[in-house]
Amino acid sequence: MISNNNSSCSQQTKFNLVQVKGTWIRQSDQFQLAEGKLSDAKIYENKSEHGVSWTVVSPVVFTYRVIQCKNTLDPTNDTLLWGHLGEEELKHTLSNCKPPKRFVVIDENVNKLYGSQVSQYFKARGVVYKILPLPTTEENKCMELVTKILEEVHEFGIDRRSEPIVAIGGGVCLDVVGLAASLYRRRTPYIRVPTTLLSYIDASVGAKTGVNFAGGKNKLGSYVPPVAAFLDCSFFQTLPPRQISNGMAEMLKMALMKHRGLFELMETEGRKLLHTKLQVCETSPEQEDSATATIRIAIETMLEELAPNLWEDDLDRLVDFGHLISPELEMRILPALLHGEAVNIDMSFMVYVAVQKGLLTVDEKNRIIQCMLSMELPVWHRDCTLELVQKSLKERLKHSAGSLRMPLPTGLGTAEIFHGMIGDGILCQAHKKWTDELSSSGGK
Amino acid sequence: MISNNNSSCSQQTKFNLVQVKGTWIRQSDQFQLAEGKLSDAKIYENKSEHGVSWTVVSPVVFTYRVIQCKNTLDPTNDTLLWGHLGEEELKHTLSNCKPPKRFVVIDENVNKLYGSQVSQYFKARGVVYKILPLPTTEENKCMELVTKILEEVHEFGIDRRSEPIVAIGGGVCLDVVGLAASLYRRRTPYIRVPTTLLSYIDASVGAKTGVNFAGGKNKLGSYVPPVAAFLDCSFFQTLPPRQISNGMAEMLKMALMKHRGLFELMETEGRKLLHTKLQVCETSPEQEDSATATIRIAIETMLEELAPNLWEDDLDRLVDFGHLISPELEMRILPALLHGEAVNIDMSFMVYVAVQKGLLTVDEKNRIIQCMLSMELPVWHRDCTLELVQKSLKERLKHSAGSLRMPLPTGLGTAEIFHGMIGDGILCQAHKKWTDELSSSGGK
Repeated sequence: MISNNNSSCSQQTKFNLVQVKGTWIRQSDQFQLAEGKLSDAKIYENKSEHGVSWTVVSPVVFTYRVIQCKNTLDPTNDTLLWGHLGEEELKHTLSNCKPPKRFVVIDENVNKLYGSQVSQYFKARGVVYKILPLPTTEENKCMELVTKILEEVHEFGIDRRSEPIVAIGGGVCLDVVGLAASLYRRRTPYIRVPTTLLSYIDASVGAKTGVNFAGGKNKLGSYVPPVAAFLDCSFFQTLPPRQISNGMAEMLKMALMKHRGLFELMETEGRKLLHTKLQVCETSPEQEDSATATIRIAIETMLEELAPNLWEDDLDRLVDFGHLISPELEMRILPALLHGEAVNIDMSFMVYVAVQKGLLTVDEKNRIIQCMLSMELPVWHRDCTLELVQKSLKERLKHSAGSLRMPLPTGLGTAEIFHGMIGDGILCQAHKKWTDELSSSGGK
Repeated sequence: MISNNNSSCSQQTKFNLVQVKGTWIRQSDQFQLAEGKLSDAKIYENKSEHGVSWTVVSPVVFTYRVIQCKNTLDPTNDTLLWGHLGEEELKHTLSNCKPPKRFVVIDENVNKLYGSQVSQYFKARGVVYKILPLPTTEENKCMELVTKILEEVHEFGIDRRSEPIVAIGGGVCLDVVGLAASLYRRRTPYIRVPTTLLSYIDASVGAKTGVNFAGGKNKLGSYVPPVAAFLDCSFFQTLPPRQISNGMAEMLKMALMKHRGLFELMETEGRKLLHTKLQVCETSPEQEDSATATIRIAIETMLEELAPNLWEDDLDRLVDFGHLISPELEMRILPALLHGEAVNIDMSFMVYVAVQKGLLTVDEKNRIIQCMLSMELPVWHRDCTLELVQKSLKERLKHSAGSLRMPLPTGLGTAEIFHGMIGDGILCQAHKKWTDELSSSGGK
């Protein structure tokens, strides 16, 4: 945890921190005098002839809830208003006689479909609320939108400890509101209510917030998780099929990286899931249907990878599969490609790289591409040129502490992270084969 | 840590996370199969008839160094370039053949005094650098300044993992650069080099960054500590005496809250320390001189209080003494009052509140006020009216989860945090006595 920076002539002392009557006191391991609450934080003191230095090691615990729920906008359902609280906290909050306040940011398209239900929900619950509809598109995903939210929140007035900001919409909406909330008074709790499959699977589960900056995707942001994400599949009913495919790309990512069962489910059921918009058919209540299973596994695998690495201190991330070339591609041809589509094109190319490196068999590659096509995802794009690939990887290398970290599939549902730069020969051959085989089938 | 939100019919499972060959796998306590690296993060799964919910509990460890050093701008001194790294990290970094890059933001007044030395330092060390001088005043402390820094950083180009942004200046400079760095690529390391006594004691030691917004002080910001703060007293030589007094107010805060020895030192030596600008007189090397001792204790006590509560999850903070009324006062009469001066006026009033509540004796009060005056700090201000006091406390109450938390001295070097609102009677009487006794002596 703490690297050793003692020079031979310096002397290091480790101090614990103990709270006695409201005051924190440092104590060395040798002399534990006072009794009190012990902090997990430590202070290491080094004395040398040059002076004193201290190293502070302080863990901050982030806790958040991810809750699957139905009928979120039904006023008899407590979740939207109180689902972020535990029983004890809720009791304490309900003992307060003031009516609760909620500031809600909603995507303007979602507002057309669900705005009046959201209003009715808060009205029926006696909440003092303000709903701010915003055009949360990828092109508008910038600091100005964050500032707009902050101005409105400030004018409305909320208790930064107990009145979370609510975001209802797709990934852009959740990312932008998350950033605004993480900045307001240095951290105001916020709640994510994803309305797209992509944001349900991806943005809701992790800690990242962000906006685009200087032509770069998510170049500004923070790692502050919401207090809660409320996941309601019924929003998918009003999505166009392309938005369902878009989300399935991120599910496929988790399948390819770490869950063969999920891959096989998507391979056999993907087309059906797309056409039924992942709505649960209630015919067989004792057995989990494929829509429920697919979503559950996608979220479980995502949580597994994100929870131990919330601030991305570990650069080796399986969840980065499909995200090495796609940011560049996405920003270049906005708004022609959706995020999941760009990710899928990246994954499709990387599958060819994996074959070229001998990690995947041709049969496995064919099954993966076939699965992508069955979910109506693009597997090739003319703007994903070899130059773009090379530029993206170099850009990534610049920000990876000297070593490219590239997750690649090593089978169906297994993966490894490769640290070296991929040779130009392999990239070039993979790109040629990829273009030869796929430029005519489902690509653009 | 985790509140119990099980309804009676739901079933909770705790999962540990184990990393096996680069993939994180969740395992319940009962079935520990795979061997691998265990994460401190946990996932709690609740299954009920409504669906599944997960609670993620994920500790993120923040590590930073606070280093006292001399001759920081001497090119033979490694600290400014490499002091943020431990021995192992440094070896790894030096094995890289690329010249290091540093982006430096410096206050424009500091730049006039030290800019050429900073340039010479980086030039002599073979660093590719860019120095950005900015007018980092309280009036300019806003998002526009953050954006300006971000644009320049982005154009210059740095490795967000290994090339920290360096801030050289007072508290505003350190706060603004800290916020820019915490936003850039969701977190870029940064280094604080305080040039004022106030920022040396205060901003450098903690994790807070921030800018003013909508007329409110530090309304936007983050809790991301620097990788390192380099503390060099010799910068104080070029400060006007008023800036020394300004910093001594924050030292006095720590003395009053938790260190009687520091108070007595400031009481007897305060005036001398002010006039010698806390420079060390090298006459008696075997005994710690009063300047060194004062500064050391101020930093130690500050670290003690900040380290266990880096993200201010605990609302009971002794370091908030002097910071309940002062933000309002400071923003109202900017730039007439410096931060430490506003803090001192707040503390002076609160000392009268403490006497009125029977926590302090009149003699103790007199000693404290006398100590403030000896350091040429204002102890009263005509704009610190009873209305402003009441408004500040109410504003504070709004953001404190329903209970005002007010640190008050209960002696010289001891304190307690009071949770209830202070009665109007006590406030009114304290304010009257404060004005009667101090409006003519050193106040404005």
